[in-house]
Amino acid sequence: MKKKCAIVGATGFGGLGLLEILTRHPELEATQLFARKETGIRINDIFPSLTGFYDNEVKDLSEIDYNSIDIAFFSTPDQAGMEIIKPFFERNIPVVDFSGDFRFNTVEEYKIYAENKSMIPEHKSPELLKHSVYGLPELNREKIRNSKIVGNPGCFAISMILASIPLTELGLIKKGTLVADSKSGVSGAGKNPGAANFYPQRHENVNTYREGRHQHLVEVENMINIKNDGHKLFFIPQVVPISRGILSNVYADPSSKVTSDDLVSAFAEYYKKSPFVRVTSKSPNLSDVRGSNFCVIRPLYDERTGKILVTSIIDNLMKGQSGNAVQNANIMLGFDETAGIMVPGTFP
Amino acid sequence: MKKKCAIVGATGFGGLGLLEILTRHPELEATQLFARKETGIRINDIFPSLTGFYDNEVKDLSEIDYNSIDIAFFSTPDQAGMEIIKPFFERNIPVVDFSGDFRFNTVEEYKIYAENKSMIPEHKSPELLKHSVYGLPELNREKIRNSKIVGNPGCFAISMILASIPLTELGLIKKGTLVADSKSGVSGAGKNPGAANFYPQRHENVNTYREGRHQHLVEVENMINIKNDGHKLFFIPQVVPISRGILSNVYADPSSKVTSDDLVSAFAEYYKKSPFVRVTSKSPNLSDVRGSNFCVIRPLYDERTGKILVTSIIDNLMKGQSGNAVQNANIMLGFDETAGIMVPGTFP
Amino acid sequence: MKKKCAIVGATGFGGLGLLEILTRHPELEATQLFARKETGIRINDIFPSLTGFYDNEVKDLSEIDYNSIDIAFFSTPDQAGMEIIKPFFERNIPVVDFSGDFRFNTVEEYKIYAENKSMIPEHKSPELLKHSVYGLPELNREKIRNSKIVGNPGCFAISMILASIPLTELGLIKKGTLVADSKSGVSGAGKNPGAANFYPQRHENVNTYREGRHQHLVEVENMINIKNDGHKLFFIPQVVPISRGILSNVYADPSSKVTSDDLVSAFAEYYKKSPFVRVTSKSPNLSDVRGSNFCVIRPLYDERTGKILVTSIIDNLMKGQSGNAVQNANIMLGFDETAGIMVPGTFP
Amino acid sequence: MKKKCAIVGATGFGGLGLLEILTRHPELEATQLFARKETGIRINDIFPSLTGFYDNEVKDLSEIDYNSIDIAFFSTPDQAGMEIIKPFFERNIPVVDFSGDFRFNTVEEYKIYAENKSMIPEHKSPELLKHSVYGLPELNREKIRNSKIVGNPGCFAISMILASIPLTELGLIKKGTLVADSKSGVSGAGKNPGAANFYPQRHENVNTYREGRHQHLVEVENMINIKNDGHKLFFIPQVVPISRGILSNVYADPSSKVTSDDLVSAFAEYYKKSPFVRVTSKSPNLSDVRGSNFCVIRPLYDERTGKILVTSIIDNLMKGQSGNAVQNANIMLGFDETAGIMVPGTFP
Repeated sequence: MKKKCAIVGATGFGGLGLLEILTRHPELEATQLFARKETGIRINDIFPSLTGFYDNEVKDLSEIDYNSIDIAFFSTPDQAGMEIIKPFFERNIPVVDFSGDFRFNTVEEYKIYAENKSMIPEHKSPELLKHSVYGLPELNREKIRNSKIVGNPGCFAISMILASIPLTELGLIKKGTLVADSKSGVSGAGKNPGAANFYPQRHENVNTYREGRHQHLVEVENMINIKNDGHKLFFIPQVVPISRGILSNVYADPSSKVTSDDLVSAFAEYYKKSPFVRVTSKSPNLSDVRGSNFCVIRPLYDERTGKILVTSIIDNLMKGQSGNAVQNANIMLGFDETAGIMVPGTFP
Repeated sequence: MKKKCAIVGATGFGGLGLLEILTRHPELEATQLFARKETGIRINDIFPSLTGFYDNEVKDLSEIDYNSIDIAFFSTPDQAGMEIIKPFFERNIPVVDFSGDFRFNTVEEYKIYAENKSMIPEHKSPELLKHSVYGLPELNREKIRNSKIVGNPGCFAISMILASIPLTELGLIKKGTLVADSKSGVSGAGKNPGAANFYPQRHENVNTYREGRHQHLVEVENMINIKNDGHKLFFIPQVVPISRGILSNVYADPSSKVTSDDLVSAFAEYYKKSPFVRVTSKSPNLSDVRGSNFCVIRPLYDERTGKILVTSIIDNLMKGQSGNAVQNANIMLGFDETAGIMVPGTFP
Repeated sequence: MKKKCAIVGATGFGGLGLLEILTRHPELEATQLFARKETGIRINDIFPSLTGFYDNEVKDLSEIDYNSIDIAFFSTPDQAGMEIIKPFFERNIPVVDFSGDFRFNTVEEYKIYAENKSMIPEHKSPELLKHSVYGLPELNREKIRNSKIVGNPGCFAISMILASIPLTELGLIKKGTLVADSKSGVSGAGKNPGAANFYPQRHENVNTYREGRHQHLVEVENMINIKNDGHKLFFIPQVVPISRGILSNVYADPSSKVTSDDLVSAFAEYYKKSPFVRVTSKSPNLSDVRGSNFCVIRPLYDERTGKILVTSIIDNLMKGQSGNAVQNANIMLGFDETAGIMVPGTFP
Repeated sequence: MKKKCAIVGATGFGGLGLLEILTRHPELEATQLFARKETGIRINDIFPSLTGFYDNEVKDLSEIDYNSIDIAFFSTPDQAGMEIIKPFFERNIPVVDFSGDFRFNTVEEYKIYAENKSMIPEHKSPELLKHSVYGLPELNREKIRNSKIVGNPGCFAISMILASIPLTELGLIKKGTLVADSKSGVSGAGKNPGAANFYPQRHENVNTYREGRHQHLVEVENMINIKNDGHKLFFIPQVVPISRGILSNVYADPSSKVTSDDLVSAFAEYYKKSPFVRVTSKSPNLSDVRGSNFCVIRPLYDERTGKILVTSIIDNLMKGQSGNAVQNANIMLGFDETAGIMVPGTFP
């Protein structure tokens, strides 16, 4: 019998992504769906593509039945799940949270994150922070296995950390040289229609925003400094007219003589136990990973200028969100890490 | 143990679509891949999204091993597989052919098809035509089950037949009134880069082509006249700037008084045994079926003008091509009709 | 010295379109800009592309100076300008109104229009209706010349009327056979971000809406019946993932024997004095008219089915809105009809 | 009477861009159009948007009449015009060349350029190189005025040079720190349909290419070192799914303490005599310049990391190609520098 999931925040792209994965997951199924708006409606009336697979009614959280939940996904915006997670924790129900609420272990770190996003800087469940783990399996697999609260990383953060951490952890680069130029599809901002992503405004457009002060910076700098302190990152997020996908170009100066082959070998070795990271020496196309949970990474050294470029690509709604969340859940529940998410991309 | 497929023409969108499906098919796997160009290369060097799933070398057909093939898919252009299918037939290997070569039972019908597409009008394997079946499971399920050669329909044809045939077969419309205004994504024309579908030319563009003389007309008129003769179709194909998907609007005048509810009921009844057809009374979005094998159909009667509109949507690479082909294969091999293809669409 | 325009509703796509045209108009300039929101801001802070051309502050209409206005454009939503047009009329200032408020000469016709759009059905300035003219120069050039209130047509309506009216007026088609299948870019709905046109929802999507009951129907049926009564139109509006442009396919049955050449000749003759209509026998690409005020029309007769197709293309923001409005203004003010708008499309 | 242009290579995007501009140019008109293919056809049969404006027959260069040409534009690929420019030079006809053939003054520099693009490294008209000027008016206005051969820069190069040169020329940055991450629309590669820019392949895709070795590097490094030697540039070109436009992010480390305001002031002062450069402190949208000849530049200093970002946007077919070419022609012929190209962008 499959384990039962509750999804809090089921009507956004995160919830949809989870439901799409769960239609093919051998061990998990969604049994309770919650949202703040759009309650009383069947989920397939909101997302017709789910018809025939999930037709659960979306309910208000007050109608929850805690007794039949094996794991909960909080696909909620920042600070929305911060307090309502408590009864799950008290009942020992594992939670994967999609927001920034549980990506940090101290209130101080959280405060910087929250301020970068112009939110209330105080955390409302500070006592839970020490129980939470940053949910990037490639770095924290063992901690995730033993945790009840996993903070699923930001999509930009995943794309940058996976491209950067072999550089910093292995001491391959000089401090003070890291720059990340990242391009995201529109769905990275969630199901939030607004002026900036209105079709006529977004088509044929590219723009930078929150230059050097995007909230994901904090979590990236946390992670890349764990074994080798002192790295800062200049991060320039950008939006391009695509629906899904992030391509990050991470630039740095090498700490000592290196070649592209050296870098490819170092990265391949670093990720040899990570089934969803593919290291390559060829320039990838973002569309290679569409719909899949893979992160493809291409490191390169430019001899003429003495600079390193690491390009990474992910589907922001899969490895950048729901796919990574299920990867975390698989680890937390003792399943095969790849269950339900080992699928190829879809093309074209 | 899974049954073994050969794919002839593995390097186009049809081949890719099959391989994507076969990564999740419980009964079938691809073991031999053939193409005319790009031989000697691994399939995942052509389609990097398949890395980790299929890395077979693409070979020339001369290297085929007929002994270990349970079914063959010919994802080849018109007239490319017309003769090379013979040794498969002689060895009793079932074949699903993606081209127009085996969609007709007579050389006369084939001739009209070929002439509409400005091809050589003579069929080169006329003796096989009587063994072939038009591969639309919703109409020919039993014939397909007993056939060794199935001609997988054209993508436009599937979208129009499924929208039209309840109208003609049930005698719901007047002869001489059928019009189909169909909009297709670019992948409908295969992996054929050219001036018309160069990104700068295709974006922000819509155009009609082969107005009233598209080759799929012949197969549509064949099918919709099977039980109720005398219908003609004025078919206007169009290309819109999307990668995949077809939305067809079929217009007709009713033969007698009717309501939208009547039509919805009649269509629902007609397709009640067809797991991939969904009849609805709401206006569908083409994106509802992206990546899935469903055809969603919405019939409507406009009382003010006395006209019928039936809108159908499919993913041209799934229900319009590879998904439908696997559905045919499932039936031919005695599997569950939905094996490997009962997946929800992917959104957004 | 140039004549002075006021633009009421300057901050939408209609206002922007006018301002773009006015930067190159030899006789007209915009001197007063009004809006309900976004007042107190310079227009080029709203539309940075206007920087260096127009930097007027957007004001509240209460700040208007009627004394220095030679013509006013009301680029306002339905019913927004219905009453505030009165002081302009009383001061004899010519007005081109972009909404449906002044497209009809009777309150009865207006009521049908308003009800189709679920608006208050009563007109608030009924006494002005008899002074207003339907602003399609190709049909009403002389009336427009002598009018003080011109109701600029709906974009879909322009595309359908220009494709249909030679058919009905010249008696070329049977009554009861007209169908229009029209595809519009997203900007046709104005600068109104919402769920339906959020980039991830709109890309890779096509959908029909208000099937057979779109509000533009009333104005189309008004016009096509002027000289030859009794025609009804089944109109299916659709949205495709492009920013600007409308392609309409108008279907009908001929009243007597006809050829494609006959139709092309009849249309060419009909529009011989209309500088912005191009009749062609070749299938046009919607992108041929992007950024221009042209309407390209291709009539075709399908001998096999005995059906007529007339395809028309326009840029919905030019011939479908601001370009047509300036064409009206040119006529009203005695300028060359083409002043400021005789520009080629921009490609790609 | 207008001056007469010949356009060699009239059937590509460069030729089309020139013709669009010339329809509104007060002093110039195109009178002779040449191409290698598509001769004997009217230009408006190739580009229907030009109908009513230009209907010249495209001819083979052998049919040229040198006597009635005041200026020639060579909108030809690399090495196509290298020799055929000679008779123009001998007849004292000014030429603006769109390729890389005349962007360098020495055969050595040209050789590097050619090798980066895998072309024959020998220049076939070396004697002309000393007469040519690099055609960026913002840097070389006076030299252009006195030259008969202007090498119109590469589109990427323009976007990077305008963003970088105040930094290097004013000594604002450290050597060895320059990185340019540039995103281009597809039309930047010309009217060259191919696999990479086939609609289904290009939509929803972003990719890097020729990382650190794109041919435009040579011309950028030439220019940015003119007054302050020793700068190298690590340049990563990328293609995004848009038709036109380039957004470049140029990164560098400051040579001494600086603020964003300092940078904005320095850039504004540097470009104060350049009518097509707009310096801003706000994040620009690429769509702000679509269809216009402007380059918008936003310099920024990130205090936390001590890094500089300069973002520039251009329309690659205007300021990046034809618009800049006409700007050069205006200067060469003694017209107002802005004649025919001082138009706002078109939106949306």
